[in-house]
Amino acid sequence: MKLPYSTLTSASLLAGRAATDNNQCFGSSTGQPLSEGTYAEPLRPQIHYTPSENFMNDPNGLIYANNVYHLYHQWNSKENVPGYQNWGHATSEDLLHWDLHPAAITPDNDDGPFIFSGSAVIDENNTSGLFDESTSPTNRLVAIYTEASSEKIQSQHVAYSTDGGYTYTKRPEPVIDINNPEFRDPKVFWYEQDSKWIMIVSLASQHQMIIYESKNLIDWNETSRFGNVGQLGYQYECPDLFPLKIEGSDEEKWVLITSVNPGAIRGGGSGTSYFIGDFDGKTFTPIDTAVREMDFGYDDYAGVTFNNVPDGRRLWIGWASNWLYTGNVPTEPWRSSLTLVHELSLTQVDLTDQHQALALRHKPVDLSSLITETVKETNSPMSSDSIDFPTKGAVDLSIDVSFSSETEASKSSKSASRITIESEDGVNSIEFGVQFSDHIVYVNRANSGWSAPTFGSLGATSITIPDDNKVNLRAVIDHSQIELFVQDGIHFASMVFYFQDGRVPARLRYENEEGVTIDHLKLDALKSIWEC
Amino acid sequence: MKLPYSTLTSASLLAGRAATDNNQCFGSSTGQPLSEGTYAEPLRPQIHYTPSENFMNDPNGLIYANNVYHLYHQWNSKENVPGYQNWGHATSEDLLHWDLHPAAITPDNDDGPFIFSGSAVIDENNTSGLFDESTSPTNRLVAIYTEASSEKIQSQHVAYSTDGGYTYTKRPEPVIDINNPEFRDPKVFWYEQDSKWIMIVSLASQHQMIIYESKNLIDWNETSRFGNVGQLGYQYECPDLFPLKIEGSDEEKWVLITSVNPGAIRGGGSGTSYFIGDFDGKTFTPIDTAVREMDFGYDDYAGVTFNNVPDGRRLWIGWASNWLYTGNVPTEPWRSSLTLVHELSLTQVDLTDQHQALALRHKPVDLSSLITETVKETNSPMSSDSIDFPTKGAVDLSIDVSFSSETEASKSSKSASRITIESEDGVNSIEFGVQFSDHIVYVNRANSGWSAPTFGSLGATSITIPDDNKVNLRAVIDHSQIELFVQDGIHFASMVFYFQDGRVPARLRYENEEGVTIDHLKLDALKSIWEC
Repeated sequence: MKLPYSTLTSASLLAGRAATDNNQCFGSSTGQPLSEGTYAEPLRPQIHYTPSENFMNDPNGLIYANNVYHLYHQWNSKENVPGYQNWGHATSEDLLHWDLHPAAITPDNDDGPFIFSGSAVIDENNTSGLFDESTSPTNRLVAIYTEASSEKIQSQHVAYSTDGGYTYTKRPEPVIDINNPEFRDPKVFWYEQDSKWIMIVSLASQHQMIIYESKNLIDWNETSRFGNVGQLGYQYECPDLFPLKIEGSDEEKWVLITSVNPGAIRGGGSGTSYFIGDFDGKTFTPIDTAVREMDFGYDDYAGVTFNNVPDGRRLWIGWASNWLYTGNVPTEPWRSSLTLVHELSLTQVDLTDQHQALALRHKPVDLSSLITETVKETNSPMSSDSIDFPTKGAVDLSIDVSFSSETEASKSSKSASRITIESEDGVNSIEFGVQFSDHIVYVNRANSGWSAPTFGSLGATSITIPDDNKVNLRAVIDHSQIELFVQDGIHFASMVFYFQDGRVPARLRYENEEGVTIDHLKLDALKSIWEC
Repeated sequence: MKLPYSTLTSASLLAGRAATDNNQCFGSSTGQPLSEGTYAEPLRPQIHYTPSENFMNDPNGLIYANNVYHLYHQWNSKENVPGYQNWGHATSEDLLHWDLHPAAITPDNDDGPFIFSGSAVIDENNTSGLFDESTSPTNRLVAIYTEASSEKIQSQHVAYSTDGGYTYTKRPEPVIDINNPEFRDPKVFWYEQDSKWIMIVSLASQHQMIIYESKNLIDWNETSRFGNVGQLGYQYECPDLFPLKIEGSDEEKWVLITSVNPGAIRGGGSGTSYFIGDFDGKTFTPIDTAVREMDFGYDDYAGVTFNNVPDGRRLWIGWASNWLYTGNVPTEPWRSSLTLVHELSLTQVDLTDQHQALALRHKPVDLSSLITETVKETNSPMSSDSIDFPTKGAVDLSIDVSFSSETEASKSSKSASRITIESEDGVNSIEFGVQFSDHIVYVNRANSGWSAPTFGSLGATSITIPDDNKVNLRAVIDHSQIELFVQDGIHFASMVFYFQDGRVPARLRYENEEGVTIDHLKLDALKSIWEC
């Protein structure tokens, strides 16, 4: 279901590409058409989701219902900094283009209680008793979220929608209140084996995730806790828990996600870890307590997965920012973007040549429908080159880098392949690459322009160089954001960057040290998802 | 025992402040007096240990014997890059000033087998049978180290010293060889309860630490393994295992250190974690598997503790560098320094106001004997100021920063106190500070001058702001190195930096955002340990 523009009259209307037949750009929180140039600012991501204006953080309540993907997100619809938190709303049929809707759940008053992160489910069988026969089963959405009260208590609440997720009515009483000021971000899903709902929710300052069960979404019983493991950071947030098949096998494992903030090891701010294990409907038991990071950049936080996706695919999206600087970055009238939607799978990864372990693989949503031009494709080995980008949109770069181990690297060589993405005048740039001698892949934004005292420069991760000495890198490069996928997505990094004075990524240069070559390169130009 | 200069004739002689009565500077690997200006290079640390020339990495074989502290270290005595690895050697009576000696254990041939990291013990009772009555019990030192053969097998070897640790004779056969190319860095200590030796050693590519026991240092039996937990990185290295009393209690816990490289989460290179638990002489059982980092900078790796320290103190020292760039940093004729020696203790730390946990406290060696002048000391609240440093040596800065929670911070304010250490002309600088709004302390070297694609800028960690809203920072600032101790050492960061063109740290500036003040500041000037 799509709302015609004429119904978008709420004061908290989210702006942008409204759901009209002619794809005209509408919006702003006043309900007026957007001015010319919206979504065309130099720093505005062109293929990544951003709110038309004001401050966004965590993606929320992700669910597929009535043939569309619902993306809700934490939003301060009033200011370009965090504060008046509510649930912004957008929908998509293809996970690339987003139709923007009014905020779906908003605070009762200007000073709260605020509507923090949570999730949404379809209560088709009316287990909650919140619906009657007038609502068709597929329209019966229930949002489960955290209310943050002025008394500084965080408790879990529900609201229900009878129109398939566009508007919600709050149930006034909390469904879980344990009188704790740091208790938030419920993720709820249907656990078919026991015909019950499961909630995983963060007891943030105790570094615990609590698992609850319920038959009706209203009455919840705690079944277990998981925590005090891996990266603690200052607080745990935004859990998720879901099953995944192991690639090439019928075996299923469960993945438990914990976001930590501040105090994630890389950069001291926001970061996400996950654990792999078994779940029996009550307790999550990890296969080990090794730290698995969701990404090796700075800008992937609070990522969670969609409920009810067809065909058993597990689709994930993250917030591409970091609390250490998100309120200060130089974008307006909006702040923050999301990652692309990724399909997740589980696969055996060579941590080293003596140790294999399960890890997530990230496969971004198919971008082929956005390709306007293949700027360059070659299978000839190359040691250095420079390629200009088309003037608009984003690019999708895929390269295979190989190292000839017969070449003796000098002691100070890193046997590196370095790719630089720079502005037209070369003043601002980001860089990524492989250092074969160190077994690492890195992204560095030290020269990207905007900086802040806690805007870290370097993300890197160790990789195992396979027997053929070949490493695959795929970089999706947007105006102020890069997603880097290594070895077909078994490593992933998300980094934002802010070129200065209207500059945008305009060219790539690559340089390979002795013995290193790029064997294959393909650069596709991508058109904006916001064209209208 | 000190060797007179006249005996320092080995081709692998380590240079610098030789052990002579008049403290004249001698050395260089030729045995000739050092030229004027050695240890006076602008980037040369003045109160931290460096070899006079060539490349150093891990501290090794740390032991107190015959009234001196022996510091051995991985050293390529021939080049300023890694390669010809042997055990460099220095001794100290005060853990500040170091007497330099010839390399203690060197390879048999120019192409190896190389002498990798390890440890040293005093075999007073000749359990090994390597000694006879001609060697006094306190002179009976045994070094246990890894030999890296040209066949790429790493095995554990012993060498024995009959002169108290200045020269060693190798036992040709390995004591442990499991035919693995990544098996190294044995730490051995006497376990009094069972009258036996314990070894902990890294099976690097399997992310395991193996614990062995022995009655004689020659025949070893595996008793347990610990691993696949916490930060794995690409490989585990340089373990340590030792007991520590909990402050204010008679309870003792054991600390197990793992260094990981590459792939440590912060920066993707070298980093060190530790676990706290119990050890029964055979198996280490952690109290939890939370990640505890040894430090929140980039330059603290392979740190281990001294054996046989009097009074039960546990003294630790780390390598202040990182494999991602250590072979490229712009210092010559040496590369790498060590941290100061720290006394470690265990203490209960508030991770948040809802979660306490045990953690290490770092207390650097007493620097008071190096103070030449208290440049400034004040208890008056200050919001900003600038203080010049004396022209030589290093400085020791201690400040208490407090935040008035009655001041409402603006949405974009970080409620920060920022301290900048800069060159005379302000061109190069490093910065550290507290962001009260984010619960973090950070160090940033983005503007320090020298950089490299994998030279990360930002180290930060979350802290709990105590009820009095006061945070204590102590920074020991050397010419190319900073050690930052937070809240009396319950957080610690080590960072190197390289100002350009002869610049040295010459001034500090501090700025506090609204509501933040420095209540106490003391800046001491420290004289060089290398004056001679």
